[in-house]
Amino acid sequence: MTERDPPHVVEAKKTTIGPVSYTYTERDVILYNLGVGATEKDLQWTYEGDDEFAALPTFGVVPQFEASSSVPMDWLPNFNPAKLLHGEQFLSIKAPIPTSGELVSQARCERVLEVLDKDKAAAVTSVVETRDKTGKLVFENQSTVFIRGSGGFGGKRTGSDRGAATAANVVPKRSPDAIVEEKTSSSQAALYRLSGDANPLHILPEFAAIGGFNKPILHGLCSMGIAGKHVLQKFGAFRDIKVRFAGVVYPGETLVTEMWKEGGKIIFTTKVKERDTIVLASAAATLVSDALTKL
Amino acid sequence: MTERDPPHVVEAKKTTIGPVSYTYTERDVILYNLGVGATEKDLQWTYEGDDEFAALPTFGVVPQFEASSSVPMDWLPNFNPAKLLHGEQFLSIKAPIPTSGELVSQARCERVLEVLDKDKAAAVTSVVETRDKTGKLVFENQSTVFIRGSGGFGGKRTGSDRGAATAANVVPKRSPDAIVEEKTSSSQAALYRLSGDANPLHILPEFAAIGGFNKPILHGLCSMGIAGKHVLQKFGAFRDIKVRFAGVVYPGETLVTEMWKEGGKIIFTTKVKERDTIVLASAAATLVSDALTKL
Repeated sequence: MTERDPPHVVEAKKTTIGPVSYTYTERDVILYNLGVGATEKDLQWTYEGDDEFAALPTFGVVPQFEASSSVPMDWLPNFNPAKLLHGEQFLSIKAPIPTSGELVSQARCERVLEVLDKDKAAAVTSVVETRDKTGKLVFENQSTVFIRGSGGFGGKRTGSDRGAATAANVVPKRSPDAIVEEKTSSSQAALYRLSGDANPLHILPEFAAIGGFNKPILHGLCSMGIAGKHVLQKFGAFRDIKVRFAGVVYPGETLVTEMWKEGGKIIFTTKVKERDTIVLASAAATLVSDALTKL
Repeated sequence: MTERDPPHVVEAKKTTIGPVSYTYTERDVILYNLGVGATEKDLQWTYEGDDEFAALPTFGVVPQFEASSSVPMDWLPNFNPAKLLHGEQFLSIKAPIPTSGELVSQARCERVLEVLDKDKAAAVTSVVETRDKTGKLVFENQSTVFIRGSGGFGGKRTGSDRGAATAANVVPKRSPDAIVEEKTSSSQAALYRLSGDANPLHILPEFAAIGGFNKPILHGLCSMGIAGKHVLQKFGAFRDIKVRFAGVVYPGETLVTEMWKEGGKIIFTTKVKERDTIVLASAAATLVSDALTKL
């Protein structure tokens, strides 16, 4: 049975967002890297003069953030931005990441702006392509947000298969092949937000309370960046990464990433140690070294 | 007996440096504040939406940094930049600090570029004025650097009395009126350097070794910022601050600031707890509340 989009979703897919320009320097790269827990010991991530100076691969979510945040949702029934939660993120790194320059992002609403009706919530997936000045594709991001209270509008119920972006990434039964534990700083969100997501949910206690949280929560994309760093440290560079945001992290908590190597794919979960709670699930990264042999 | 400057010092005082423009946003202010240890609990320093959002007063050393670093010293005998140490800093805050905008700094070499001959070292003091776009004076900085191995050129031996900038600030015999202890982060220098002082001495172990240090040292101006925050937290706003950099701090060490209130002046010293070593000496800040009654 083929489901069809209702008329307002058809309209939404005609939206044009961007091009949104993001100009950055090595300082912005270091700031991002520090924001996801790189330290003074990681000179390749924190010292611009290092021979191997680089952005962590998850930096790819930064240049597109404004574009993906601009996808209109106010046409959803009972839309309330305070009810919006980041659900999933898929990032594909298509080219070496420049350590400075200008990148341009465009939301491809016509191609994949998937709007699913989960009865109690709407799930909206936007696709943003980020290119350099020559037009070369550098990043593709697929961001899914859940808007609680905005379901029941007669939309599709089942998403399309978007490959690695929608894979279940089921954890093998065996013990993890690698584990990395990292304590976040209590100021982690205050630092991470300087990389572009200034939502007060991540710093202002009163605002977090309105969202139903005891205190400000860490950005989901910050947790993803930390976990991505763990994968990189244990298994090397990856060309895509996907996570589902399964729980919140409070700044200062300890993240534990458990990783399983399955061919060229690293399946992982990230837990908060103090509360033994999974915060990143259905997660995986595809290693660069396996790029040519992957199906 | 009046000492006179030798001819090359007279020439140096004719140097023009600047105007050097510094354009900044609230993000730069937060980055600086985090760099000197402000946390997510200090919303007035880390959240741009806070009603009392502000730069810490020692932010005043940031816009002028490029100008004060540009004062030429290569005419000194045996000049070697690796032998240069920051000796003293005096900062006077002349107007409320904008949280974003453009400030313009100019070194006033003709007025006070004091070059003293200490036999084994030269001491060079530069004065930089920082103004807003309307020409209003916002900061005055006096920075003294010591260049080891560059003395003995026949220069003056005794500096002029520059008021609070040269006061001895002798610590009273009694117990401190207030003490603040703060552990720095091992990444403190990696973060602070994003506010403009990218000297590899503060991040690159090999470079620190050349300078004679076991590992990279924290920026003196970062320690000053942390101590200034301690004064502010205990006694309120100040209109000037002066420190002598008496010892090095390694990122991760704990700073202990002991403060004595003497009228409208807070005399302080800052020690590294782990090594029981004074790192900021002859230090004081003049409280704003006392501005009108001060001699």
